[in-house]
Amino acid sequence: MDPDTVAKAFVEHYYNLFDMNRVGLASLYQDASMLTFEGQKTQGSQNIVAKLTALPFQQCKHHITTVDCQPSGPAGGMLVFVSGNLQLSGEQHALKFSQSLWHYKCKK
Amino acid sequence: MDPDTVAKAFVEHYYNLFDMNRVGLASLYQDASMLTFEGQKTQGSQNIVAKLTALPFQQCKHHITTVDCQPSGPAGGMLVFVSGNLQLSGEQHALKFSQSLWHYKCKK
Repeated sequence: MDPDTVAKAFVEHYYNLFDMNRVGLASLYQDASMLTFEGQKTQGSQNIVAKLTALPFQQCKHHITTVDCQPSGPAGGMLVFVSGNLQLSGEQHALKFSQSLWHYKCKK
Repeated sequence: MDPDTVAKAFVEHYYNLFDMNRVGLASLYQDASMLTFEGQKTQGSQNIVAKLTALPFQQCKHHITTVDCQPSGPAGGMLVFVSGNLQLSGEQHALKFSQSLWHYKCKK
């Protein structure tokens, strides 16, 4: 699979989990993983999931607009840059969002 | 200097060059550097500067809203995530922008 296809599949999987089963995101982070969210750094899979599940919205839907990736690191990882709209339940207008994800391990 | 201070100084330097002397950005990229810009990948300092100077706007001013960083890689590098507004000359409304920068070498 070419890197762009891997990146799109990864991003789709990530945000499907975020929207449908946020605690399931634990499977995509490890103990060394770090989330930086609006100035706050959180490290480790369990802490990251605790942070994400404590966000002040529950039902949401991410609509992806762009997915850009490039190789990163010697082990076949990639840096993925995502932008799109975040629709919150009960809100009329979607929020803009963007996020960088480091997909550091390509399963074959 | 703590990482957040380094990141903010780096980001300020990067966008000052972008706004005032775009060809000067060549000093911040190397041959192995890659720019992914709205789906297009460009590799190497000279190619990246050629891409950036060929953008369909000349005078611009980046106004930074957020700078988030986290450690990345074994050599003391960091991943920096930036968001803000981009004011183009002659345009009434600013554009939203966000960018990830990999600052992989901390000079001491």
